[in-house]
Amino acid sequence: MTSTSGLSQRAKMAGGQPISHLMHQALANPNLISLAAGFVDPATLPVELAGEAVAALLADPTEARRALQYGTNSGLAPLREALLERFHTADGTTPAETGLTLDNLVVTAGSNELLHLLADTLFDPGDIVLCGAPEYFVYLGVLGNLDVRAIGVAIDDQGMIPEALEAELARLDAAGELSRVKAIYITSYYSNPSTVTLSAARRPRIVALAERYSRAHRIYVIDDAAYRELRYAGDDTPSLRAYDSSGETVIVAQTFSKCFSPGIRVGYGILPRALVEPVLNQKGNIDFGAPNFTQHLIWNVIERGQLDAHVERLRASYRSKLAAMLDALEEHLGDIPGVSWRRPTGGLYVWLELPEGLAAGPASKLFGAAVAAGVLYVPGEYCFPREGVPVRRNSIRLSFGVQNEPGIARGIAALGRAIRDVLS
Amino acid sequence: MTSTSGLSQRAKMAGGQPISHLMHQALANPNLISLAAGFVDPATLPVELAGEAVAALLADPTEARRALQYGTNSGLAPLREALLERFHTADGTTPAETGLTLDNLVVTAGSNELLHLLADTLFDPGDIVLCGAPEYFVYLGVLGNLDVRAIGVAIDDQGMIPEALEAELARLDAAGELSRVKAIYITSYYSNPSTVTLSAARRPRIVALAERYSRAHRIYVIDDAAYRELRYAGDDTPSLRAYDSSGETVIVAQTFSKCFSPGIRVGYGILPRALVEPVLNQKGNIDFGAPNFTQHLIWNVIERGQLDAHVERLRASYRSKLAAMLDALEEHLGDIPGVSWRRPTGGLYVWLELPEGLAAGPASKLFGAAVAAGVLYVPGEYCFPREGVPVRRNSIRLSFGVQNEPGIARGIAALGRAIRDVLS
Repeated sequence: MTSTSGLSQRAKMAGGQPISHLMHQALANPNLISLAAGFVDPATLPVELAGEAVAALLADPTEARRALQYGTNSGLAPLREALLERFHTADGTTPAETGLTLDNLVVTAGSNELLHLLADTLFDPGDIVLCGAPEYFVYLGVLGNLDVRAIGVAIDDQGMIPEALEAELARLDAAGELSRVKAIYITSYYSNPSTVTLSAARRPRIVALAERYSRAHRIYVIDDAAYRELRYAGDDTPSLRAYDSSGETVIVAQTFSKCFSPGIRVGYGILPRALVEPVLNQKGNIDFGAPNFTQHLIWNVIERGQLDAHVERLRASYRSKLAAMLDALEEHLGDIPGVSWRRPTGGLYVWLELPEGLAAGPASKLFGAAVAAGVLYVPGEYCFPREGVPVRRNSIRLSFGVQNEPGIARGIAALGRAIRDVLS
Repeated sequence: MTSTSGLSQRAKMAGGQPISHLMHQALANPNLISLAAGFVDPATLPVELAGEAVAALLADPTEARRALQYGTNSGLAPLREALLERFHTADGTTPAETGLTLDNLVVTAGSNELLHLLADTLFDPGDIVLCGAPEYFVYLGVLGNLDVRAIGVAIDDQGMIPEALEAELARLDAAGELSRVKAIYITSYYSNPSTVTLSAARRPRIVALAERYSRAHRIYVIDDAAYRELRYAGDDTPSLRAYDSSGETVIVAQTFSKCFSPGIRVGYGILPRALVEPVLNQKGNIDFGAPNFTQHLIWNVIERGQLDAHVERLRASYRSKLAAMLDALEEHLGDIPGVSWRRPTGGLYVWLELPEGLAAGPASKLFGAAVAAGVLYVPGEYCFPREGVPVRRNSIRLSFGVQNEPGIARGIAALGRAIRDVLS
């Protein structure tokens, strides 16, 4: 017997996530300043709000017992009602326009569980998902573990380029591979890692392309809206669902991990009607429902009208940390030829592009120099699908989520030194 | 496009769980006394303990922030330490004897997530799992949804019969199907639904059979110990792991859903070393870790030494409710020829066998008569694997988990009337 004999095909395909390498580095070098982790800022975690919510829900014996009992597979009904109402308000739509009812909303253990359920519901090995390039690398890892092909589509400052998407769909059609295309995946707000928001003008065009190329089966658009609330400047943009007039194409994935707390593990999906039952069937196999206790917790926070004020506090804190990172970049990297970055208006990241030929991968000279200088980053190459747009090895994802402002400044200074060292 | 075009093979295979039918009945008839739901008793849910634990953990700002942040994929280390220590104490073993370290213990979102992760890690469509007959019907549903064959092995008052297991393994070997056998699954304490505990004498024999028939790959023994703490009489029995001298065969699945609260969604698995990484790879695809907030909650309860006293209170309450159910059965069904039941010493169920030919399935005359009389039960036929030991249609699973004592008595009286009606 070998170590893998007896494992399923799925287990044999699956490897660890690339993030394991980074976590190993972080553990081995506890004094590193991590600009890698996409964690939220511990200082802004809602300790008081959570305490008040739990105290309130446990003070009512009926609600307390409900929260400690099994919930339902699709999630706590009053929470789902509140979420649906908030969704319509944010998008500036009405239930009459969207046709959405409580049945379309499923609560999951973070949005990651939703992405997993969708993968199990929609993808067979060899199927294709079109993504931005770069895109959320943990999701690319999930697809790879399921032997699903991620193909990168070019993006610019307004997000995925519709012409590039159309060209890729036409190419796949001509190659006889359109039948394997199951979804288009976009982190559409302050994208992790590109920081770009898909513009309102492009949203209906992406939905229309998905519809136009849906032949033997529907091509779904997965709108991963995890960072929507983390907006520090400019106006909000309606979700892709607002541009899906049939209501049959767009799936919206949302989470409380970024705007409240990842530790409660509550996210949700807004699903086209045809997917609700298949997704719930998969979910029933895993956990019979997201954690009921923490669903009651976040419901309580929303009902008491405390979520929006908390999000405002978060925005103020991250806005300031983003400014600190941009200032430090200007100071320490601003005069290095060929180094550039976008100025994000939300999210937790800055995407850095380095001079041509300066590789930033995990085995690169730069990565080693950065660790030696005391800073950890996510190599941008992790964020490129294996096919489509070529991998940019000279790119870096930086996060201002966890570090405080002095830590951000020190980390960027160290990165500047490492880049200069390697270039000289 | 049809409604299933574009779905994955997995989604096309998956159906709902049979329990949906029962939940529909319960919702449509809110005045029914449900002896069907396997829920724990709301009256015994630990409202005060949970409140104290949350207050304590939120009072320490460092722990509070940790609890609200992401955790690790394998679970909270100090919780895992405490669980491993409790496991050794319960089994009367030592880490030196078992070879178990923290790495072998993975915290999951209830034990159901562990069972799902094991299924994804070990089973391909067409693979075989040997189970008792009857066995936990939700697990049979999960296997069916994955197109995994469940084959039922005969049980008696001491649990799975080793001679029957050996005969089935030999039969599959002769049929050239041994290579598809991946696991033996046993709810080994106060089994749901048979109420039987696998005797200590049989445990090493089951492990030895799994080892003996492990050829091209290992046949794992999954010891689902969900009901171990719900013991109302007699001594505890060591888990199957205590009889696995190599430590490579037995997986133990445990949960806090029965002995504390299902709403916190915390369970755990004790895994052979070879399975840890493959299981964590699957888990990383789903949720990056069980809910961190509620892991901190239960860890706090354990650290404060409050779990054992809570379990003792639970036992006292369920012991009394079990007695109420057995008394009511004696009173209302005791004189019906051909009706019999085991007297459990733990768990949440009583398994009822009816006269030959008296079908109890969801479309049976009896099921309708019971609903008309005001009581809901789980048809025993749900609990039989599709192959192996023939389905007993004249069987019923009753639960004393949710109802109070008067409810139990009224429910059993109604069931007695329904049986008499149908027989007459």
